Amino acid sequence: MRLEDLTVGQTAEFGKTITEADVMMFAGVTGDFNPVHINETAAQRSRFKGRIAHGMLSAGLVSATIAGKLPGAGSIYLSQTLRFTAPVRIGDTVTASVSVLEILVAKRRVRLATVCRNQDGLTVLDGEAMVLVEKDQT
Amino acid sequence: MRLEDLTVGQTAEFGKTITEADVMMFAGVTGDFNPVHINETAAQRSRFKGRIAHGMLSAGLVSATIAGKLPGAGSIYLSQTLRFTAPVRIGDTVTASVSVLEILVAKRRVRLATVCRNQDGLTVLDGEAMVLVEKDQT
Amino acid sequence: MRLEDLTVGQTAEFGKTITEADVMMFAGVTGDFNPVHINETAAQRSRFKGRIAHGMLSAGLVSATIAGKLPGAGSIYLSQTLRFTAPVRIGDTVTASVSVLEILVAKRRVRLATVCRNQDGLTVLDGEAMVLVEKDQT
Amino acid sequence: MRLEDLTVGQTAEFGKTITEADVMMFAGVTGDFNPVHINETAAQRSRFKGRIAHGMLSAGLVSATIAGKLPGAGSIYLSQTLRFTAPVRIGDTVTASVSVLEILVAKRRVRLATVCRNQDGLTVLDGEAMVLVEKDQT
Repeated sequence: MRLEDLTVGQTAEFGKTITEADVMMFAGVTGDFNPVHINETAAQRSRFKGRIAHGMLSAGLVSATIAGKLPGAGSIYLSQTLRFTAPVRIGDTVTASVSVLEILVAKRRVRLATVCRNQDGLTVLDGEAMVLVEKDQT
Repeated sequence: MRLEDLTVGQTAEFGKTITEADVMMFAGVTGDFNPVHINETAAQRSRFKGRIAHGMLSAGLVSATIAGKLPGAGSIYLSQTLRFTAPVRIGDTVTASVSVLEILVAKRRVRLATVCRNQDGLTVLDGEAMVLVEKDQT
Repeated sequence: MRLEDLTVGQTAEFGKTITEADVMMFAGVTGDFNPVHINETAAQRSRFKGRIAHGMLSAGLVSATIAGKLPGAGSIYLSQTLRFTAPVRIGDTVTASVSVLEILVAKRRVRLATVCRNQDGLTVLDGEAMVLVEKDQT
Repeated sequence: MRLEDLTVGQTAEFGKTITEADVMMFAGVTGDFNPVHINETAAQRSRFKGRIAHGMLSAGLVSATIAGKLPGAGSIYLSQTLRFTAPVRIGDTVTASVSVLEILVAKRRVRLATVCRNQDGLTVLDGEAMVLVEKDQT
């Protein structure tokens, strides 16, 4: 999307069910083998009472929504703040929502509210992103 | 690591070469199919002149360092700020460094400086994390 | 860990839930498409009455414990004996335990007892490893 | 293959090029993130002067040859000894060879010589396997 076509309040979403394979592959790619993610026996003894997904996996859905939908192609990710507010369990469907908070025309930047919710509407992650929108988009 | 054993300035690192397969699997897990990550032809035409890794993949290495080393087992990730300061190319070796900035004893929280550098020492990501250290660690 | 810091009887563990995706990816990487691992219909008719994980996948957890914990970085794997004593089913949590049996100071070698148990404490693999501990560790 | 059809000296082979993706996925499945496998910068500083594959990955090719060819379907893997005699580098083609050393008819067991060689004929792994051959094969 071109910077000129963005408006404050505009929103986009992307949802995905988080499978056991996703969690295992995320561990493999990042090296994050925290027992709460990959060891059901240890996770049962933890405060979460079972395995949970990596917080950065939900953050990856935010990135996917920005790259794929709003602003979409030509977005350069500058920064992101993340608060992990509730656990995501294997089998949960997480929906990332991105909405335009502010458009900084001169700098070609967009400030976005970013939130992930599970299938029950519970917020599992929130924060803000700053994105540069390139003129010449691929 | 127990909260009592942490000291301000303490540091831990985790490094990993970012392979083409990592980027492909990260795209598959998160749904982030931004052309600059998965389409070499489009990426050649972009400002990056070739494919780059997802910023959240580097953020995952930060998460791995926190979960695996400092504070390690029993860490609950509360929040993270991220600035993406330079691209990571396929074949780069990214090292995440985590260091203790502040210990909030009453709340059992630790504030950490988090930075990722490539094999040339260039900072590709920086930010801060807030982590809760559980009393009863798995 | 430096050779000088090792003591006979020292122990380390690493546990992981063996997911369906693990078995599928292990088959893909090694080419071991034994029907008992990847064909539920055939596996149901076998003595195992369902799919089981590859024995070498459990052996990989032993390798992970040696490389990651005891002796950790700087370990050079020389040899391993393996007895596969019980099947590992999809969803089982396998914990590899490594303990120091003997330290051969002049040769910088360590002999280790290696055992994997499932979530019920049943031994699924046992054997011994011989590891060289480098002086100059990465 | 039925026990009755096996002869001492019988041989089978299975070869596979070990890719960077294989090594990364093997690390992800087993949790073995030894820097010599996944960190090119650290591996360059090691005695190996670059990344090498996990020894158990080559062992997995032995398992694949036993399960797929000799004795093939109906093989129950009882035990394996492994000596890791030379490093396997990314891009090497490893060929596992299995040959019948002894047939224990009463126990329905077969003792096998198992060796892996790289594309230059250098032995990277050797050892012996003991396999049970089921009567009623799937």
